[in-house]
Amino acid sequence: MLIRPATPQDRPAIWSIIGPVIRAGETYTLDPAQGESEALAYWLGPDKETFVAEEDGTILGTYYLRPNQAGGGSHVCNCGYMTAANATGRGIARRMAEHSLAHARTRGYRAMQFNFVVSTNDSAVRLWQSLGFQTVGRLPRAFHHPTQGYVDALVMFHPLDH
Amino acid sequence: MLIRPATPQDRPAIWSIIGPVIRAGETYTLDPAQGESEALAYWLGPDKETFVAEEDGTILGTYYLRPNQAGGGSHVCNCGYMTAANATGRGIARRMAEHSLAHARTRGYRAMQFNFVVSTNDSAVRLWQSLGFQTVGRLPRAFHHPTQGYVDALVMFHPLDH
Repeated sequence: MLIRPATPQDRPAIWSIIGPVIRAGETYTLDPAQGESEALAYWLGPDKETFVAEEDGTILGTYYLRPNQAGGGSHVCNCGYMTAANATGRGIARRMAEHSLAHARTRGYRAMQFNFVVSTNDSAVRLWQSLGFQTVGRLPRAFHHPTQGYVDALVMFHPLDH
Repeated sequence: MLIRPATPQDRPAIWSIIGPVIRAGETYTLDPAQGESEALAYWLGPDKETFVAEEDGTILGTYYLRPNQAGGGSHVCNCGYMTAANATGRGIARRMAEHSLAHARTRGYRAMQFNFVVSTNDSAVRLWQSLGFQTVGRLPRAFHHPTQGYVDALVMFHPLDH
């Protein structure tokens, strides 16, 4: 599997991945009603470096990396990852996360922060923990899950040594 | 003191308040180098309701209220407050915070979250605690203070009962 920077030619493939995740509204705090142009403007925004995970010419996942804050907070980065619905369970998110941690180090970031991990998303929480993320915050009932109702969200943090 | 929605006529007064705070870079994770138009575009952005605190025709403070997240996180709001440099210590931030908590309730928000309170900003931390905010997260060395170096930032949270 190759992880490489996204190009304009990848836009349809990226939308085919992120569209269903956004519409489901179970893991990201994005408006589930937003359309393709708005979603791609966000995912490929100028504040972000966006990557795709490709295997045999097929894009199976995508992630972005950006500064989590400006000014005095710009040494901490933030990422978002999404995997194609038909490619889950194959370790693609882990590969992208490992890639992002390495890339963040090359960019000089001192830490990576996830601002909003839905606490009931067990597989994501376990994955981030296995990669060295620690839960540094718990936001009570901060996420309204479409089927589970109000659930906590976690703030997770990974220092990056240089 | 009157707290009222900001109007376009308030832009010079708002800039005179937020400009020095942004340039100081000690409390907000905003680019200290940004200019008036960028700062006002942020502070008065379409995602925000922005208010000013006025006394005898002089604007002494300003704050914004916005959803902290979209989608499943849009029931939690976020605020930012700034007081004029020559009007600190007079309880203006407290008055604006009380106003914002009341306004958030009328808007139906279920909680207010501060994502990034600089941990060494003692007066702010004490003020938010006195208003009922609890520290729900601590981001290790997430803020690079211009004179104190790397310091922690706090995530603070206030549920709003209805």
